[in-house]
Amino acid sequence: MSEQNLGVAGAASSPSASDIATLQAKILAFAAEREWQQFHDPKNLAMAVAVEAGELMDHFRWVRSEEARRVLDDARTRTEVEEEAADVAILLFEFAAVCGIDLGAAIERKLARNAERYPVALAKGRAVKHDRLREG
Amino acid sequence: MSEQNLGVAGAASSPSASDIATLQAKILAFAAEREWQQFHDPKNLAMAVAVEAGELMDHFRWVRSEEARRVLDDARTRTEVEEEAADVAILLFEFAAVCGIDLGAAIERKLARNAERYPVALAKGRAVKHDRLREG
Amino acid sequence: MSEQNLGVAGAASSPSASDIATLQAKILAFAAEREWQQFHDPKNLAMAVAVEAGELMDHFRWVRSEEARRVLDDARTRTEVEEEAADVAILLFEFAAVCGIDLGAAIERKLARNAERYPVALAKGRAVKHDRLREG
Amino acid sequence: MSEQNLGVAGAASSPSASDIATLQAKILAFAAEREWQQFHDPKNLAMAVAVEAGELMDHFRWVRSEEARRVLDDARTRTEVEEEAADVAILLFEFAAVCGIDLGAAIERKLARNAERYPVALAKGRAVKHDRLREG
Repeated sequence: MSEQNLGVAGAASSPSASDIATLQAKILAFAAEREWQQFHDPKNLAMAVAVEAGELMDHFRWVRSEEARRVLDDARTRTEVEEEAADVAILLFEFAAVCGIDLGAAIERKLARNAERYPVALAKGRAVKHDRLREG
Repeated sequence: MSEQNLGVAGAASSPSASDIATLQAKILAFAAEREWQQFHDPKNLAMAVAVEAGELMDHFRWVRSEEARRVLDDARTRTEVEEEAADVAILLFEFAAVCGIDLGAAIERKLARNAERYPVALAKGRAVKHDRLREG
Repeated sequence: MSEQNLGVAGAASSPSASDIATLQAKILAFAAEREWQQFHDPKNLAMAVAVEAGELMDHFRWVRSEEARRVLDDARTRTEVEEEAADVAILLFEFAAVCGIDLGAAIERKLARNAERYPVALAKGRAVKHDRLREG
Repeated sequence: MSEQNLGVAGAASSPSASDIATLQAKILAFAAEREWQQFHDPKNLAMAVAVEAGELMDHFRWVRSEEARRVLDDARTRTEVEEEAADVAILLFEFAAVCGIDLGAAIERKLARNAERYPVALAKGRAVKHDRLREG
């Protein structure tokens, strides 16, 4: 990543836009410029992730399951949902950075663990929690 | 992405581990193998993101702000926090994929918007919401 | 409230079991006996309410809307849902007490405000937020 | 409860304002008048409780623990917090009613269970989860 890519705007089309570490560098720079690190401890960031997750969910609270996809057909709602999803990601990425968690690696490990907990033969077509999956 | 990269384990050290799109492909493959797409509509995924965000936050609920960083000194707690952070990310990444949201681009756009809402001169050292920031 | 009513068990069938203030007195006594007031500030209690709300919601995350009522047909799930609902209430009641909020009065006020925001003629059969209700 | 008490406004000072069952009757009447029962299944209500819990928590996300009580010194914030607390309660009370849960009794049972899980001698002054409380 070149130095000039650190600016937050204008980089949306760059090939690195999807890289967690690159995004984290921008997010941390944003907070540091505003001297917000004093507020952004792990507790407050975890709270903020949950607040934003609530706002994301808010768009779907009264919708029936089968209509959930159509919520995004409305352009204004789609933009709002995109912003809320971005808010969750920004705060989660900052949380991971502040805690020294390698989020990509943690995701890989969790997927591997889920593969053990939810073997295809048992879990296929069933939305049952792993601790009840073997009860029959 | 080559076929052998589809395996969930062992790729943690690969250079692409931090790329959102690569992780999304693995997450979607995981769900598809188990025929879970029927449950994973935007509403249910948004709920699941919020549930996992709650579990992440649970580790910090009674901790004082100044001790929040020390929570992660305990190895068992650190592992649990890493897993919860991964859960939030996995479900958020799947949510974005299912909704057709380019999460990296959405993050860049939101950071640009936040830069306008929170100009450094006004926001420095202040944890005040943008709609109250200009009230003085 | 007489002294013997302070005992937490056995009072479920008493006529006052449904009174918020009576329940709050028991909840505050429970926390005070354990010297937990030091942890139970408004911030931490608000977090705890949200954590428990996430756990309550967890029981419904993959269920289709039309099957949501049947979740409670399973006796074990019903008990768990009842416990989670109680957890949310306990922490919310303690939050209100610690903040000096008269929750019953606040509910009455909010219902009155909602009656203005959602006039029957406009809101009948429509799950639309008040700020969009008048858009047509 | 007399018929004229069913009106949502004006009853704030009545002695029954703090009774859960009385409040539930008003909340259910409010939803029924607007034909909202079709949206208010247990899944959607549980989501709504969590959304409102997130909004309640939002007021405290960047505040240090020791300053959390002072948040309510600001009159506008206090009103907003009261409204959010009322929103959580309204939706939780409706959730319980729709699910056929006696919330007052469930709270009593949960307090009794917590008394077993957190004996005063072990739990005094310690904010440790019950499953770790006996680890020493």
